[in-house]
Amino acid sequence: MIKQHESYALLAEQLAANGLDVDTIKERLRKQKIETASWAYANSGTRFKAFAWPGAAVTTAEKIEDAALVNKLTGICPTVAIHIPWDRPADNDFAAMRQFAAERGLRIGAVNPNLFQDDAYKLGSLENPDPGIREQALDHCIECCAIMGTTGSTGLSVWLADGTNYAGQDSLRGRKQRLQASLEAIYPHLPDGGRMLLEYKFFEPAFYSTDIPDWGTAYAMALKLGDKAQVLVDLGHHAQGVNIEQIVAFLVDEGRLGGFHFNNRKYADDDLIVGSTNPYELFLIYNELAEAEESSNATARNCAHNVAYGLDQCHNLEGKIAATLYSVINCQEAYAKALCVPRARLAELQQDGAVLAAHALLTDAFRVDVRPLLAQVRHEMGIAPDPIAEYWASGYEDKIRSERGIADASGGFQ
Amino acid sequence: MIKQHESYALLAEQLAANGLDVDTIKERLRKQKIETASWAYANSGTRFKAFAWPGAAVTTAEKIEDAALVNKLTGICPTVAIHIPWDRPADNDFAAMRQFAAERGLRIGAVNPNLFQDDAYKLGSLENPDPGIREQALDHCIECCAIMGTTGSTGLSVWLADGTNYAGQDSLRGRKQRLQASLEAIYPHLPDGGRMLLEYKFFEPAFYSTDIPDWGTAYAMALKLGDKAQVLVDLGHHAQGVNIEQIVAFLVDEGRLGGFHFNNRKYADDDLIVGSTNPYELFLIYNELAEAEESSNATARNCAHNVAYGLDQCHNLEGKIAATLYSVINCQEAYAKALCVPRARLAELQQDGAVLAAHALLTDAFRVDVRPLLAQVRHEMGIAPDPIAEYWASGYEDKIRSERGIADASGGFQ
Amino acid sequence: MIKQHESYALLAEQLAANGLDVDTIKERLRKQKIETASWAYANSGTRFKAFAWPGAAVTTAEKIEDAALVNKLTGICPTVAIHIPWDRPADNDFAAMRQFAAERGLRIGAVNPNLFQDDAYKLGSLENPDPGIREQALDHCIECCAIMGTTGSTGLSVWLADGTNYAGQDSLRGRKQRLQASLEAIYPHLPDGGRMLLEYKFFEPAFYSTDIPDWGTAYAMALKLGDKAQVLVDLGHHAQGVNIEQIVAFLVDEGRLGGFHFNNRKYADDDLIVGSTNPYELFLIYNELAEAEESSNATARNCAHNVAYGLDQCHNLEGKIAATLYSVINCQEAYAKALCVPRARLAELQQDGAVLAAHALLTDAFRVDVRPLLAQVRHEMGIAPDPIAEYWASGYEDKIRSERGIADASGGFQ
Amino acid sequence: MIKQHESYALLAEQLAANGLDVDTIKERLRKQKIETASWAYANSGTRFKAFAWPGAAVTTAEKIEDAALVNKLTGICPTVAIHIPWDRPADNDFAAMRQFAAERGLRIGAVNPNLFQDDAYKLGSLENPDPGIREQALDHCIECCAIMGTTGSTGLSVWLADGTNYAGQDSLRGRKQRLQASLEAIYPHLPDGGRMLLEYKFFEPAFYSTDIPDWGTAYAMALKLGDKAQVLVDLGHHAQGVNIEQIVAFLVDEGRLGGFHFNNRKYADDDLIVGSTNPYELFLIYNELAEAEESSNATARNCAHNVAYGLDQCHNLEGKIAATLYSVINCQEAYAKALCVPRARLAELQQDGAVLAAHALLTDAFRVDVRPLLAQVRHEMGIAPDPIAEYWASGYEDKIRSERGIADASGGFQ
Repeated sequence: MIKQHESYALLAEQLAANGLDVDTIKERLRKQKIETASWAYANSGTRFKAFAWPGAAVTTAEKIEDAALVNKLTGICPTVAIHIPWDRPADNDFAAMRQFAAERGLRIGAVNPNLFQDDAYKLGSLENPDPGIREQALDHCIECCAIMGTTGSTGLSVWLADGTNYAGQDSLRGRKQRLQASLEAIYPHLPDGGRMLLEYKFFEPAFYSTDIPDWGTAYAMALKLGDKAQVLVDLGHHAQGVNIEQIVAFLVDEGRLGGFHFNNRKYADDDLIVGSTNPYELFLIYNELAEAEESSNATARNCAHNVAYGLDQCHNLEGKIAATLYSVINCQEAYAKALCVPRARLAELQQDGAVLAAHALLTDAFRVDVRPLLAQVRHEMGIAPDPIAEYWASGYEDKIRSERGIADASGGFQ
Repeated sequence: MIKQHESYALLAEQLAANGLDVDTIKERLRKQKIETASWAYANSGTRFKAFAWPGAAVTTAEKIEDAALVNKLTGICPTVAIHIPWDRPADNDFAAMRQFAAERGLRIGAVNPNLFQDDAYKLGSLENPDPGIREQALDHCIECCAIMGTTGSTGLSVWLADGTNYAGQDSLRGRKQRLQASLEAIYPHLPDGGRMLLEYKFFEPAFYSTDIPDWGTAYAMALKLGDKAQVLVDLGHHAQGVNIEQIVAFLVDEGRLGGFHFNNRKYADDDLIVGSTNPYELFLIYNELAEAEESSNATARNCAHNVAYGLDQCHNLEGKIAATLYSVINCQEAYAKALCVPRARLAELQQDGAVLAAHALLTDAFRVDVRPLLAQVRHEMGIAPDPIAEYWASGYEDKIRSERGIADASGGFQ
Repeated sequence: MIKQHESYALLAEQLAANGLDVDTIKERLRKQKIETASWAYANSGTRFKAFAWPGAAVTTAEKIEDAALVNKLTGICPTVAIHIPWDRPADNDFAAMRQFAAERGLRIGAVNPNLFQDDAYKLGSLENPDPGIREQALDHCIECCAIMGTTGSTGLSVWLADGTNYAGQDSLRGRKQRLQASLEAIYPHLPDGGRMLLEYKFFEPAFYSTDIPDWGTAYAMALKLGDKAQVLVDLGHHAQGVNIEQIVAFLVDEGRLGGFHFNNRKYADDDLIVGSTNPYELFLIYNELAEAEESSNATARNCAHNVAYGLDQCHNLEGKIAATLYSVINCQEAYAKALCVPRARLAELQQDGAVLAAHALLTDAFRVDVRPLLAQVRHEMGIAPDPIAEYWASGYEDKIRSERGIADASGGFQ
Repeated sequence: MIKQHESYALLAEQLAANGLDVDTIKERLRKQKIETASWAYANSGTRFKAFAWPGAAVTTAEKIEDAALVNKLTGICPTVAIHIPWDRPADNDFAAMRQFAAERGLRIGAVNPNLFQDDAYKLGSLENPDPGIREQALDHCIECCAIMGTTGSTGLSVWLADGTNYAGQDSLRGRKQRLQASLEAIYPHLPDGGRMLLEYKFFEPAFYSTDIPDWGTAYAMALKLGDKAQVLVDLGHHAQGVNIEQIVAFLVDEGRLGGFHFNNRKYADDDLIVGSTNPYELFLIYNELAEAEESSNATARNCAHNVAYGLDQCHNLEGKIAATLYSVINCQEAYAKALCVPRARLAELQQDGAVLAAHALLTDAFRVDVRPLLAQVRHEMGIAPDPIAEYWASGYEDKIRSERGIADASGGFQ
């Protein structure tokens, strides 16, 4: 962008004219965090084909290297989520993994148990009709709690692929009861300071019923578990038309919003780059969070400040690392725009029932081109103003292509 | 239907061969109840046009007459829901209304406050930013609680048209908090034995956010209110693809399923005849209820036995009374089919993970033509085997056409 | 906006740096046209309630006054669509209406026959099973063709509310054949230079089948009619998830895109302000059109230059005139952003299969804050830089409130 | 089923009482045809996991053996669709494949080119921006035309996985034009008596735009190609709520309905057993086809009689062969019910505008339990009355489990 300095100065002046404190905005932007996911640096695909990307990470070490680079370039991605067993070290030495990450400026983020790739889980894991399989799933989750302790992770991210494909295949109430019981058996194993993030999903891979199909189910189960259980919102896990920012507002108001899996979709769980199909929705979600961060309501405020923000995407066509950088930047832009909302004025208009004026005021913040602001923030953080340009210029991609080659991508999701 | 006797005998034999007790099935069918709605006997329409049906009821007395006829012809519709102020007597004499109904073999069912047709409610009722409007809405609901007492009604059916059309129009968290507070102010006014049925709706007439958009919100609010607050499920109030029977199973397992507004839809809240667009879904819903009625789990069993089943439909094109009869019959068929499921055998197959066999066993019950069974039940109840044929033969429609004429239908929803 | 001049200068420099010619962009923006709709200045509502807006137009003269004001303030709305019979003059003197509009700088735009508010059309108009009703509908459309001639309108905008609510209600193939035959009977009556714009709609008010449910049906029927029949795209008339810009691209490539009814929706045909729920989609639609306008393909280019752009919205809560201005501005911003796309560079990236880079280049144009550009264009057109601020300052709203009062809004859609 | 004979006799009497000719119905049922798909006998899965089914076919010979068994047990599945290169013989000897099938009573059905599993097709096949890749795809399709000739197949079933994931990734109009040109290059290679079946799909695996996203696009392309190009309808390839039977009615009326890929879905392209999530929809589809078969309109009648009916399902959890049998039976039941509609009476009611009566008459046919009728038809065809029971009793499953073992299912879709 040409004339970055002039652009920023002009923008800062305009924000100030709207009564906003630019220094506060910049400080909040510097504190923003986005966790990346180890598996997003590896090849992935659809059920029809997984196209291999030359240089895609295969080992966890490679994934951590990539995540460290993303953190270095953006300054706001200090953690990386891991998936067990995909990221299980050969010798089970998770302390070494933690150390390996730390040496690269990274911490281990959410631990994701894998309850869908073992043949045993064909008809379910934590709610399988077979008690032996339930126990296998339970043991895996409990081990993941232990891994949290070793790696310093604070989040157990529980996503279940479980459900049924046909009416009558299993008892809906039976599955609900068995799942609740299993979660209750896991909960006490959370390490100190750890929390369970319960993720819901509308459908896929189950096509008739999904055991945690919506936020209401996750919320109800979390309520029974206790304060350390919260709901995780994946932007691709809703029916068409669902107002996600309203779910966010509800959960944050109840202190039960635990985290996000960011991505985007036009159709189903498309797992595209966050902000790529609906940037306005992403802005509206961050708007609820930015508002709650400033709230006088302690529950909402504390909850908003402890949300675990993470990416969960499948970069099937567009390469991995640049696409991850682009996703992080989209989150920054959405949050930056949300910070440009003049909240006191907005509240007045809302109280007055000024429908159009209130809407226009909110969306004026969305109209702002915040790129000069983010470039300035990066400058102040000592990093390059354009992380993707910096990445392209770095030669990293050539390096991993030659070092890593083309990994076999025929193995499905991973 | 020709050879009703032979058809029934053959069906009874087949059911018995599946280990089912036909007498029990018939007894449960005799106990089935469906509440009809006063407003469904009046003209209604879409936002484009309300076509008048000659003979449509206008006064509440006429609506009660129609409801009494439906009860006489079906034997399972002893209550009629009312809408305030649509059904407010000129002199506010609800005791007389109760008496008028009782003389025709009817009781007053759910009382429905109207919180959407007063100009004051343009931006909301119980969660309006204006405290004066909230109080107006509150007063109306509290009066409805009193009307419950006078009429002998046991259900306050709360459906809110409220929400926003534009992002930023109002605070999502603010509306949530104000709504919860209002509901808590109403709750203590419920008469003894009365309950509050909280209805959720995905959208319409609000097009950005709806204040109770899903079962999760209704459930969470009911939890805070107390045991007398339950969730009401309207079959047309979900996003596309939502598994309604799973919501039913969840709520009944938690003892929080309060009632139904039955209708059907292909697109949005189309308010068509129940079972007309997806009879299989209706069967699957009744299947969950029939199963819970027999459950060893007391919470689920008691809940299932106390569900308030009601119709809430708009008969825009097809006439009113025959369409209501048809709706009731569709509910009977769905329940009858659900009673034909051999549950013990199904549970075995589910436990064994016999996916196809379990599905096939359930759907075999759906395949059964239960019309001879229902004709037999009606015969044993002393009513005509075909309520619609009986209705056509009765001359009632000619009578109301000449007596009532064509009501002005230009006034929208009512 | 503060420092408009500096902001524009900076933006112009940045656009030039991207290889864009700012003068060409401004010229195209000056030529942009949006037709407003007479009925949008009047009260409207949902099936539940139509809230009256003080000052809403009732007579066609009032609607034309409002439309003239919108044109004066925006400079790009020189035509107003009319609805027959809603806008039928008392004496049927459409020449006088044309003159009345011309005196206010307006022309009459699309003529919209109303085929849904007569009781006769309960089961359909142009494809009603009753030949007498089909003839009534035909006569109305043929009269509308004559009105086109008198008013100087060039578009017959055919939207049918027709369809069925229940499977079996009518023959689907029969309705298709009758509709095609009726359209063929209307087509020869189009005046010289006139065209028929066939509008499709997914559902509502029909809830089982709609006679023109999708663009494919409208396109197939238009093909049989002839070159003067084209498809009209209403942004609210699709199933969830449908890629509207791809339909636009297809139709423009075939020379069969006739026009738009702009509005926005999150759920169904919500008829909200265009750009209010998905501004990115609006940008992508304009992107296809801007691209086609520059195409070397004559069919696509000519088609794109002759698209009839119109608003079709229901301002239920937010007032009428400011909301119309806001809608026009949203269209200007979307088009302006589309004009900021560096097309040659984009085509190169697409040819190279540079997925992320091509996507990022396109969306960078969306990120641009084009408000300074539009303010400059307005300045050069001799109008105020902020049409809404100008409107609020004009006192027009006070004037119409006192002159027109509160119209009865109880009559439904109109 | 007990008392099959009595049940059938009673049903036949009832059908006759409705003016239906039972012999004609049985004759039409004997002529019904359903093609099975070679790949459905092999393992398949979701992007998360493909669970192996013990005994699943791996080689094409095994798939043909399974298909032959299904044909033997049902009597109505004489053809099997093949997928190239999945079913390419080691020596490319398709004549031997044809002979192998013929010896087992089977013919080769539709030939399906695979344009999605080669790395070259990452960004598209027949409309790839790279002309070399387009040529590769073209060559493959032209070879498939030759394979049609050798195998005696009459259908080239073209499904494209192609599209884009991100706005801007490629030119929408460019892809449309390149695809049309490629199809025009393939068309002349169709063997005598062969036709091209163009399949559309709403989304997946492309998540922003799909190159043939809806029936309108397939229809428009087929129109330009010529009479031998028709549209193929896959029941899982529509947006939510789309009225599929109306598409069927439109296409059959235009003589452009080529075939079906039967399956069922609740959410997206779930590829479940046909009739398992919405049996009523399947009935309504067959109802349009049964009606057209009897039509006086020669185009519709001929088209209906030449529809290629095929299954395209993924049996991820429920085993393969019994699930295929169940699918065929569901199609038989749906068609049988459609044949129970008294069409002359229905047409009268439709003409009279008797909305409820017409709907009820149609749905009464759906209510009929046609199992005794189908058992009788099978008896008259000399096959067992219950194909699934016969299959379980045959020992075939034990045999293939021991002979074939557990195939590696890790390879994704295939």
